[in-house]
Amino acid sequence: MSICEKYFPREPSAPVVSSSSTGEASKAEIKTLDKTFDSRAAYFVADYQKSEGNYIADVDGNLYLDVYAQIASIPLGYNNPELIKTAKSDKMIRAIVDRPAMGNFPGADLKEITSKLLEFAPKGQDKLWSGLSGADAVELAFKAVFFWYQSKKRGYAKPFTAEENESVMKNQAPGSPELAILSFERSFHGRLFASGSTTCSKPIHKMDLPSFKWPKAQYPSYKYPLEEHKEENKREDERCLKIVEDIFSTWKCPIAGLLIEPIQSEGGDNHGSAEFFQGLRDITIKHGALLIMDEVQTGVGATGTFWCHEHFNLSPPPDLVTFSKKFQSAGYFFHDPELVPDFAYRQFNTWCGDPARMILAGAIGDEIVKHDLAAKAQEVGDYLFKKLESLQSKYPKYLQNLRGKNRATFIAWDLPSGDARNKFLSDMRAAGVNIGGCAEASVRLRPTLVFEQKHADILVAAIEKVLGSY
Amino acid sequence: MSICEKYFPREPSAPVVSSSSTGEASKAEIKTLDKTFDSRAAYFVADYQKSEGNYIADVDGNLYLDVYAQIASIPLGYNNPELIKTAKSDKMIRAIVDRPAMGNFPGADLKEITSKLLEFAPKGQDKLWSGLSGADAVELAFKAVFFWYQSKKRGYAKPFTAEENESVMKNQAPGSPELAILSFERSFHGRLFASGSTTCSKPIHKMDLPSFKWPKAQYPSYKYPLEEHKEENKREDERCLKIVEDIFSTWKCPIAGLLIEPIQSEGGDNHGSAEFFQGLRDITIKHGALLIMDEVQTGVGATGTFWCHEHFNLSPPPDLVTFSKKFQSAGYFFHDPELVPDFAYRQFNTWCGDPARMILAGAIGDEIVKHDLAAKAQEVGDYLFKKLESLQSKYPKYLQNLRGKNRATFIAWDLPSGDARNKFLSDMRAAGVNIGGCAEASVRLRPTLVFEQKHADILVAAIEKVLGSY
Repeated sequence: MSICEKYFPREPSAPVVSSSSTGEASKAEIKTLDKTFDSRAAYFVADYQKSEGNYIADVDGNLYLDVYAQIASIPLGYNNPELIKTAKSDKMIRAIVDRPAMGNFPGADLKEITSKLLEFAPKGQDKLWSGLSGADAVELAFKAVFFWYQSKKRGYAKPFTAEENESVMKNQAPGSPELAILSFERSFHGRLFASGSTTCSKPIHKMDLPSFKWPKAQYPSYKYPLEEHKEENKREDERCLKIVEDIFSTWKCPIAGLLIEPIQSEGGDNHGSAEFFQGLRDITIKHGALLIMDEVQTGVGATGTFWCHEHFNLSPPPDLVTFSKKFQSAGYFFHDPELVPDFAYRQFNTWCGDPARMILAGAIGDEIVKHDLAAKAQEVGDYLFKKLESLQSKYPKYLQNLRGKNRATFIAWDLPSGDARNKFLSDMRAAGVNIGGCAEASVRLRPTLVFEQKHADILVAAIEKVLGSY
Repeated sequence: MSICEKYFPREPSAPVVSSSSTGEASKAEIKTLDKTFDSRAAYFVADYQKSEGNYIADVDGNLYLDVYAQIASIPLGYNNPELIKTAKSDKMIRAIVDRPAMGNFPGADLKEITSKLLEFAPKGQDKLWSGLSGADAVELAFKAVFFWYQSKKRGYAKPFTAEENESVMKNQAPGSPELAILSFERSFHGRLFASGSTTCSKPIHKMDLPSFKWPKAQYPSYKYPLEEHKEENKREDERCLKIVEDIFSTWKCPIAGLLIEPIQSEGGDNHGSAEFFQGLRDITIKHGALLIMDEVQTGVGATGTFWCHEHFNLSPPPDLVTFSKKFQSAGYFFHDPELVPDFAYRQFNTWCGDPARMILAGAIGDEIVKHDLAAKAQEVGDYLFKKLESLQSKYPKYLQNLRGKNRATFIAWDLPSGDARNKFLSDMRAAGVNIGGCAEASVRLRPTLVFEQKHADILVAAIEKVLGSY
């Protein structure tokens, strides 16, 4: 019995899409909801009670195979029985009703909660700070980076000067210095103001918002299949690394940290090679900057290792690694004791995270390790990738730049245009598969970690059915 | 039987502080926890299982009357049975294990969840957007304000220009314009980068972080008791309003919104009169800016009305009202349909809030309304304030500028110095009361909404005991 069958004995064996249904119930509910809560982005209204494993139900009675999984954030399927057990536990109930200000009044169980999370930390990381969302995690990481950078300059644990104390209250230097985070074109790191200043994938994410004038480098654009374009792609790495090096040497203010996704996800599933990331590691060390690996979307088993950057053999490991989404909780891992700010109350806020979500993250990690789900995702990813390669030779126009080989089910491809992509996503839903896009014309697969061969077969059959009709 | 007795039949009748205990168990646990999770700000390690109602237990066996309540964020006492019921409900369990991307795949129960929250919205507000913390709520509100401001300029729902689309990807104008939020000296609105740029209470909150160069006006500094200094305080309002008016007229870039706390909390429990806030409302309208009322700390019954600014009779009501803390959830309320951004996906992120915490907020609101807890807080606040006035005449040096009359238990006063204040807080803990400070030398009371006369008596007796020993 597979782990999915074990978790979900009642998981549907196939999607159910009522041909007579036109989503009327969803439409009506969205219309009502939209009066009080902006719902224009809603695909449909889900019935989570009836959702099970890899299948999401909607209020019209449809059951979709879900390979988008709440924008890549459902780790172990809908209504996972082990997570329900955790949700019903006394410690979860207490975390919900007695939410602590964890910095001031940590509970007696916090030690156990953080130790559990650290069992799943990327290799080399042994400390964490917790937040509430991907954007929050990224901005908390920025804060740690800026504290570190200026403390190093001032002298670790050296008191602030009178001039610093006065100027910072006016948002002026030296207390509020001009410092930058370097990120990449096509990146996505969240939509708050500092995270949004590093995000660079679509205008809609940041239009009309004031921003920090921080630099952007170029993320490699590879030719696919990778094995047929080794030389060109190597030159692309070198070109992009040189840009990073140049920016560090010439930018108008100090760059305290470099922020990058191991795979640019929202921006189009753009991949970088291990050599590219090793090159970045070297450049950050050379220029005295920190390397922040943004694993919000790539982390927690989705690419065949618990953390995607573990594919790159970075030494030393990244300085900070952000997490959220599939972990349900958020924050960053780190290892350098000097990344603990030099005074108390520098990295601080009322809640400092949410223990309820951290407890859930611990349970998710336990299940992934216990059932070896990252390795299993790699197996099913290999299987799926081969099937997609076959489809690609049949429908090359609709399966361009197929990518994500050896990254488990973290697979994507391009369609000839944004319109063609949007039509494809919509046709796939009519064929029973809930699937998501990224960038202008790409499709991204983001199934759960209990997505197995039989689900891959259903997905491939649906793609073939849709493309066959074009 | 009082509501507190009904909720908490086993609530202790008095604090228990072991005279032999020196907090050794807390110290040992903090030392261990600190290796992986920065715990230098921890007062003690709490035992939430043994905490009950207004009493917080620690791992050394102490039981403190808690008038700080997780930095003003526990609404209905520890282990409230009604909230436990909610935490065990099927809908809560589903919200935990099937956390939706609420913008894309809202659950069938979201309509009910948001409608429930809106039952408790400030008068005049009928829409909401949800977030995850106070700082997040404030920054989401900024986003709504900036979208609104630029859409008004461009024409609501008019497409972005090519120049805007290009420039925004470089973080440059016109796509990323120079716009400001006006806030106040001594204010606290959170510690992320944009919220942190409006925060202005202590250097430690923002030292070494890049910031937006946004203006700060002056919040009134009244003389107490208010009834003896009416004329001076009226002149103070006029002085401060003139500064706001001048900033609007002279600031180097457009000011899209004015952000203010109804009572500056972290910054020292500084109060503004109804006339002051009415004046601000007029100025924002005159200058085409929005008024954001930050009710993160003051909201949810703490000042005798559900929302503190309801004391001010503002017309029209504030444009956005942020909430968090006692509501356990976070976000902002609003009423103008044009504050719904003119395109989908402008105010958006993966989770768009946390339905688990929103469900809890609904249950909290229900209990407050059902038992009329805001009015009850006003009664006990009146009782307590009178007692404190008596103490003040006995110990005027240690109870300066007693303030918060007619604001329920949202009461504060000043000690002669920061050192005296810190010693007082520590002595109060030894006397069995967990109590918090604000600003440099102030004490702030932030009990739960089930803090009753008998608790007020214990608090007053402890203050008298401590001050009597000085």
